Amino acid sequence: MAKQGLTPQGEDFSAWYNEIVQAAELASHSQVRGCMVVRPYGYRIWELIQAGLDRMFKDTGHENAYFPLFLPKSALDREADHVEGFAPETAVVTHAGGRELEEPLVVRPTSEAIIWPILADWIQSYRDLPVLLNQWANVVRWELRTRPFLRTTEFLWQEGHTAHATDEEAEEEARRMLGVYRTFMDEHMGLAVVTGEKTPDERFAGAKRTYATEALMKDGKALQAGTSHHLGQNFARAFDVQFQTEHGEHDYVWSTSWGVSTRLIGALIMTHGDDQGLVLPPRLAPFQVVIVPIWKSDEERARVMDTACRLELELGEMGVRVKLDGRETHNPGAKFYEWERKGVPLRIEIGPRDIEAGQAVLVRRLVLEGQDRKAATGLDGLSESVPALLDEIQSSMLEASRARREASSRRDFGSYEDLRSWIEESPGFAFAGWCGGVECARRGKEDLKVTIRVIPDEEFRSDDVPTRCVVCDQPSTTEALWARAY
Amino acid sequence: MAKQGLTPQGEDFSAWYNEIVQAAELASHSQVRGCMVVRPYGYRIWELIQAGLDRMFKDTGHENAYFPLFLPKSALDREADHVEGFAPETAVVTHAGGRELEEPLVVRPTSEAIIWPILADWIQSYRDLPVLLNQWANVVRWELRTRPFLRTTEFLWQEGHTAHATDEEAEEEARRMLGVYRTFMDEHMGLAVVTGEKTPDERFAGAKRTYATEALMKDGKALQAGTSHHLGQNFARAFDVQFQTEHGEHDYVWSTSWGVSTRLIGALIMTHGDDQGLVLPPRLAPFQVVIVPIWKSDEERARVMDTACRLELELGEMGVRVKLDGRETHNPGAKFYEWERKGVPLRIEIGPRDIEAGQAVLVRRLVLEGQDRKAATGLDGLSESVPALLDEIQSSMLEASRARREASSRRDFGSYEDLRSWIEESPGFAFAGWCGGVECARRGKEDLKVTIRVIPDEEFRSDDVPTRCVVCDQPSTTEALWARAY
Repeated sequence: MAKQGLTPQGEDFSAWYNEIVQAAELASHSQVRGCMVVRPYGYRIWELIQAGLDRMFKDTGHENAYFPLFLPKSALDREADHVEGFAPETAVVTHAGGRELEEPLVVRPTSEAIIWPILADWIQSYRDLPVLLNQWANVVRWELRTRPFLRTTEFLWQEGHTAHATDEEAEEEARRMLGVYRTFMDEHMGLAVVTGEKTPDERFAGAKRTYATEALMKDGKALQAGTSHHLGQNFARAFDVQFQTEHGEHDYVWSTSWGVSTRLIGALIMTHGDDQGLVLPPRLAPFQVVIVPIWKSDEERARVMDTACRLELELGEMGVRVKLDGRETHNPGAKFYEWERKGVPLRIEIGPRDIEAGQAVLVRRLVLEGQDRKAATGLDGLSESVPALLDEIQSSMLEASRARREASSRRDFGSYEDLRSWIEESPGFAFAGWCGGVECARRGKEDLKVTIRVIPDEEFRSDDVPTRCVVCDQPSTTEALWARAY
Repeated sequence: MAKQGLTPQGEDFSAWYNEIVQAAELASHSQVRGCMVVRPYGYRIWELIQAGLDRMFKDTGHENAYFPLFLPKSALDREADHVEGFAPETAVVTHAGGRELEEPLVVRPTSEAIIWPILADWIQSYRDLPVLLNQWANVVRWELRTRPFLRTTEFLWQEGHTAHATDEEAEEEARRMLGVYRTFMDEHMGLAVVTGEKTPDERFAGAKRTYATEALMKDGKALQAGTSHHLGQNFARAFDVQFQTEHGEHDYVWSTSWGVSTRLIGALIMTHGDDQGLVLPPRLAPFQVVIVPIWKSDEERARVMDTACRLELELGEMGVRVKLDGRETHNPGAKFYEWERKGVPLRIEIGPRDIEAGQAVLVRRLVLEGQDRKAATGLDGLSESVPALLDEIQSSMLEASRARREASSRRDFGSYEDLRSWIEESPGFAFAGWCGGVECARRGKEDLKVTIRVIPDEEFRSDDVPTRCVVCDQPSTTEALWARAY
């Protein structure tokens, strides 16, 4: 399959996705249904995502901790909405150490019901607040239909959990972390998202408010990339987490939780990838530059490798993640093909004639044809110029993502039929009125497979506020972002 | 408890250990028996351990990946010794997604039986070898008696898994990673270990050879801190992982696995801790320096905090992990007490009179009394001097660990009774002869609670090679390290 190239995106986006996950060696299947193996190249992307986010979490005052994988089944039952939301998709340990357990243990689908009974011991007074925790962990949700990175039975994620003395502080935290996600998606992923609040039906099970970032994939579908929940006092009441206020009274704490997962890798693939394969933003690329030496004779090889090694060293010293692909088992063409498919932002080709001319050929992954794709560049000062070039590529990817989002957004729907024909012909982000009725949201879903992704934040709303619900044509109470979604 | 101080080590080492884990806020218990919560201060130590080891793994050519949490029960059964060793202590998922599973899933106790069926697909030819993988993950072993960090039902670890074309390469890898562990324990943990090979009875279930690092705790007991296994072709045969050799033949790959876990935090506590609490080596200390400002009036506070902030900034710029403890809810005495208990290597006290004298008071955690404990030090150049001082502390901790190990080792046992009285009075590392008989090893265990930790590597062996087995007095075939152990 890899040798014959990928199925073009325009032909079958879903097939393209499955092929690229394999062909770029990002993930593979395992013996257990719905559980993927994250291969080294894919995991390195995850490590770079973790490093970037972890820095931002620490800069906003959060500390990492680790809570157990298991929770007693009874703990999950304590918050009514929460158990209803999660119980159907849990994996349950009934036997351990060769015996049946008295009480079954649930493998965490998320950790609120594990963390809150423990925080009840840690929090006594307003002086113990806020508590700002994060955990990097694996979680399990028994999904019926799975796809690598997008929806898997086990996945890797981070889950932030915080406790506050007031409603306002919890709200501020939930919004702050939504902002952290958005900044990360902008600056590291080159992913232009829409932020907003989920409708009551789509809230996290147990939350008072759920905020999300929604990203537009190249096939016009939305992907929920990160969520941040203001949990109100729901979990504090369920697990009796009270504290003494400054005025000596007792109150339940206000809490938040927020998370992103390995799904972000799915977002990267479907936002930037093209018919040649993966396209990685420089900040998350395992290798930002690959050097491919070209030789015919042994004598040429020695000369070329000498220059290539020097260049590799110089780039490394500039802080660039560089790989010199000196394999003798592959010809240069096969190497070009492999690294294009794996999305390396820049390729440097060096052959004997280049060295004589004191130059190398610089090829941009993002540019598939035309005069901007390849450029002969003097070897002198080449390394020094690479970081700025990578920054430029990083910015241009965000710009392109933003431009695609805008080009695939429409804001002037005259009727439900108008929405129908648009979404069926060229799906994208539909900004349209909503009466606030559950029935209209349901009809859009059943009828057009369109859901309300979020009530968009102020800055994403239309200048001309829609006045009618796009489904029932009754007066609109709010503008909603409707889209087909993963 | 914390307020009244810890149980002295000499009185009840085990009570001291349990108290310090709580008092230094390293871990706490959870609702699920045997599962601990790693609190932020403890987790930060783990992050520093991870960062140090991960660098060393990558420098030796390994890549991280992630394999599933679950394996089908039948997969565990494929390697005979392996299933016998691990099946009794597994946790088993029998229900998921609201239904009973057709085949139960085992929560990984280690990942050989998950990884090998997958690598069978990745490895075709000698060109695909070696495969050098590592995974950071949680594993579950249903232990009857648990203690935080030392033995818990769920724990965090890394597990390396590698495949090679020859027996020799696998052997080299297993020894190389043992060496990496030893270097890490020396240089990062300040932990002087003995390396060697486990006896056949103590091998990893499924291994051809198991190597280990054994560390001496302050109570004279040994702690197995890291293991590295040469697995021979056992797993390759069990999971049919064959490759085409350079000569066109087919052979099974040779494999290794190696791991260390959160148990290393237990090793740190029991190697360096004292009656005041934790003592952390600078390279693994969440805070290497804590600054405690001292003031009485608001005016003093402003002046002192101004200098303290400046110092904090300077130290941060020097790459020092520094904390300025400006809390107004605690007096300086309480702060001294807390940070001593938490093992911060250096404390800087600054009061108004210090500032007038252009100095600060530097207090070393490691030195409990005498003139070396506290020193007034000029503020000028203080920051610049700290990194070297931290290095000096780091080295002195390794020296102290080595000296304790030597002082608690004995090599001239005349008889079994001699071993008995020594181990009962002042347990430590007994280097003594062994006839190679399983019966003698068993007798030592049942009788004296002494086990053969390893057959020590050459450099740890005695100059006068013991000629008789310390248990049966028959001729010795090898020198063994006998000790009581965790």
